[in-house]
Amino acid sequence: MSDVYQRAVWRSEAGRPPAQGTDAVVVEEPLEVRVDGQAVSVTMRTPGHDRELALGFLVSEGVLAVPADVRAVTQSGGGPSANVIDVLPAPGTTLALDRLTRHVFTSSSCGLCGKTAIEAVHHHFPPLEDEVRVAAATVLALPAQLAAAQATFARTGGLHAAAVFAADGSLVVLREDVGRHNAVDKVLGYGFAAGLLPWRGHVLLVSGRASFEIAQKALAGGLPVVAAVSAPSSLAVSFADESGQTLIGFLRPGRLNVYTHPRRLRFDT
Amino acid sequence: MSDVYQRAVWRSEAGRPPAQGTDAVVVEEPLEVRVDGQAVSVTMRTPGHDRELALGFLVSEGVLAVPADVRAVTQSGGGPSANVIDVLPAPGTTLALDRLTRHVFTSSSCGLCGKTAIEAVHHHFPPLEDEVRVAAATVLALPAQLAAAQATFARTGGLHAAAVFAADGSLVVLREDVGRHNAVDKVLGYGFAAGLLPWRGHVLLVSGRASFEIAQKALAGGLPVVAAVSAPSSLAVSFADESGQTLIGFLRPGRLNVYTHPRRLRFDT
Repeated sequence: MSDVYQRAVWRSEAGRPPAQGTDAVVVEEPLEVRVDGQAVSVTMRTPGHDRELALGFLVSEGVLAVPADVRAVTQSGGGPSANVIDVLPAPGTTLALDRLTRHVFTSSSCGLCGKTAIEAVHHHFPPLEDEVRVAAATVLALPAQLAAAQATFARTGGLHAAAVFAADGSLVVLREDVGRHNAVDKVLGYGFAAGLLPWRGHVLLVSGRASFEIAQKALAGGLPVVAAVSAPSSLAVSFADESGQTLIGFLRPGRLNVYTHPRRLRFDT
Repeated sequence: MSDVYQRAVWRSEAGRPPAQGTDAVVVEEPLEVRVDGQAVSVTMRTPGHDRELALGFLVSEGVLAVPADVRAVTQSGGGPSANVIDVLPAPGTTLALDRLTRHVFTSSSCGLCGKTAIEAVHHHFPPLEDEVRVAAATVLALPAQLAAAQATFARTGGLHAAAVFAADGSLVVLREDVGRHNAVDKVLGYGFAAGLLPWRGHVLLVSGRASFEIAQKALAGGLPVVAAVSAPSSLAVSFADESGQTLIGFLRPGRLNVYTHPRRLRFDT
C-alpha cells in the first residue's frame, strides 16, 4: 500500500469560488503492536516501515535491548495495510512487558482498520446534520485572528493552538498546548463547562495538521466545520466525509482546500 | 504557574560562535486525569486550563455528555503545576469508564511531575556519556538534507520526519509519519534491527518541535545530539540537561539555539 493517495478536492485561491481537482493526501491507519501474540499498543501511523515502528516503540519503552532478543517479526491483519505487527521473542528470552506503562492503549474499540475506527466513533457520536453556511471570506480571515490571539506562541514558537469561531467569524475560545489534541480538548472542555455543546454552526480551527483524532474530537463537540492550517491525513478526510463534517486544509492567506462537504462554504462572487 | 519560563540558551547566527542569552520556553508537565478518584489518563500538557483539558478529554471519549453529569472538578497534586485533576460525577450519575479505550495509559512510572518522569526514564536508560564533537556548520546543513530526502512530504505537506546523521553529516536513515513519535520510533527500529544501537556519536533531527517524548526516545537510542527545526518544550530541555544530551532548537538556515550541553558543538572561526 502506498503512503499517499489521491483525493478529490475543491481548491479556492484568491478568494475565488473553488475549482475541483485532486490532492495527494498522506495515509493514516491504525497499527496494532503485539508481543508474542499479546496486543500492547495501537497507534495511528502512516503505513510503511511498520516492523521498524514496532521495534523502535519497544526499544524506546525499554522492552527490547539487543537484536538477539527477537526471533521474528510478522505482519498480518485486516485492511490493505496489514495493520498488525507481532514481535516474537527469541527462545528463552522474557521481555519485560510490565515496562509498557506509557502510551499503551487497548485495541478493542479502536479497530484495526480505518473503517472500523470510524464506525467505533460513530457508535457514540453519530454523524452530524447541521446546515450552517459560512462565507469563504470569513474562513480565510480566521488564521490571522488565531495568530493575533495566540499570546504564548508569539513568545515561544512552541505551541499548538485550537480555536472555535461562530459562523460570523467571531472568536468564541482559543487554547494552546504543546499537544495538538490537548489544545482541542481544552476548547471542548470550555464548551462543555459553559453548556455550549453541541457546538452547532461553529468552526474549529487548528494551527497544524488535521488528523483522525482532531476530526473525531470535533465530532464529539458537534462542530460541523473543521479547518486546519496544514494538511489533513487520509483518515481525517474519510472520517469527516462519513461524519458529515466540512474539512478544510491548507487554510492560508487567500487560499484553502475543501476536502469534504463543500456545501457549507459560501463563495460570494 | 506560568506556561512559559525563561531558560539560558546559546544562540548562533550566521554560523558565528554562540552568544549566551535567554529564551522563552513553553512549559510541558504531565497531567493525570481521574474520575471519582480513579486515574484514567496521563498526558503531557502545557499547564493552564487544566480542568477544561480533563473535561474535554472525557467529552471526546464519550464519557461526559452534559454539564449536569459533573458535581465538581478538583485540582491538586504535587509539583508547581498541581498535576492531578479529579472529575467528580453528580450524585446518581454513572460514567461509562469502559468507553475509555484509547489514549489511556497508566501512571505508575510516568510520574506526576516532570522530575519524576525524568527519573523514571533514567531508571531504564541512564544518562549518556558520549564526547563526540560535531561542527556547527555540519548541523546547520542538516535541515536541507532532511528536506531533500523527504519524498512524501513534498507531495502532501502532511508528514513529520525524523532522521539520524553521523557526525560528519552523512544521512544514516530517514523516516516519515503522520505522528512525530512514530517517525522517531521507525528510525530507532531501523537502528535496532541493523544492530546500530546505541547510536553513539550521532545526531537525531526531527522536523517539528522537540518534546519530552522525543528526547526520551533519543536517549533510548543512545543518541547524544537532538536537533529540532522548531521549539523545544521545557520538559525536553530539563530531560536533555539531566540526560547529558545536547539539545538544539530552531535549527534554521544560518542559525540555531543550543539549550543544553553545548560542548559537543564545534564552531570553527
